[in-house]
Amino acid sequence: MPKRGSDLWHGCPVRFGATVLGDPWTLLILRDLMFRDARHYGDFARAGERISTNILADRLQWLEGEGILVKTRDPDWAVRVIYRLTEKGRGLVPVILSIIDWSEAWDDKTEVPADFIAAYRADPAGFAASIQESLRQDAARDGAA
Amino acid sequence: MPKRGSDLWHGCPVRFGATVLGDPWTLLILRDLMFRDARHYGDFARAGERISTNILADRLQWLEGEGILVKTRDPDWAVRVIYRLTEKGRGLVPVILSIIDWSEAWDDKTEVPADFIAAYRADPAGFAASIQESLRQDAARDGAA
Repeated sequence: MPKRGSDLWHGCPVRFGATVLGDPWTLLILRDLMFRDARHYGDFARAGERISTNILADRLQWLEGEGILVKTRDPDWAVRVIYRLTEKGRGLVPVILSIIDWSEAWDDKTEVPADFIAAYRADPAGFAASIQESLRQDAARDGAA
Repeated sequence: MPKRGSDLWHGCPVRFGATVLGDPWTLLILRDLMFRDARHYGDFARAGERISTNILADRLQWLEGEGILVKTRDPDWAVRVIYRLTEKGRGLVPVILSIIDWSEAWDDKTEVPADFIAAYRADPAGFAASIQESLRQDAARDGAA
């Protein structure tokens, strides 16, 4: 058990994490990048939660500035921009998975495919790694590795 | 690997999680409850990030309404109110730990005790369970189990 005390952390990791994750729109954008194959601006805009275009543009730019996602040209159609998670961004997969796990356990309205949550709970680290590897391959294919 | 697709989840677990976690002050309050032994209103107010009293009161009330924390009387001094995480709130320990893990990996300014992060990475689920059990005992001692 770690010692818990108010002077435990100077450069607090939760405070740092809160600057990235403490925003609902950011969490939804990360979800779309990780689980919904969102790459183009329109993919995020169409996600269903009616994110406004100014919030979306702001969050994408901010996440790019933080090195969490990278913007490149679509290899299939160079006039279009695509967004991909960086390695730092893929590092957030375990965070989003743990949120999914908690919501599945505690929210009646939450629906998560049974095989998805079973595979996660059987091996959280291995499951996260397999998603990260898939995302890494997607990014490499787009030249955004 | 789960199938990724835009119609994967109707009652989206990330959207549900975002309503709780997509707020920086909430993340700091959860941190204080989990790792800094915060129980009294003043413990949160003194946490260092200068949370305003109206935001603090709002978030504590909201978290209580969500069943994430419970308010009881201090057994040592009944005029004082104490806040403790419920089982649902303790369910968020893995989320906060995964945020700590990510910050430690990616933020140069973040400082996490080496034994803490090593113990977490050696056995994330066991480490989370030991923290949850400690919090459960604390709550039971205060009659807030």
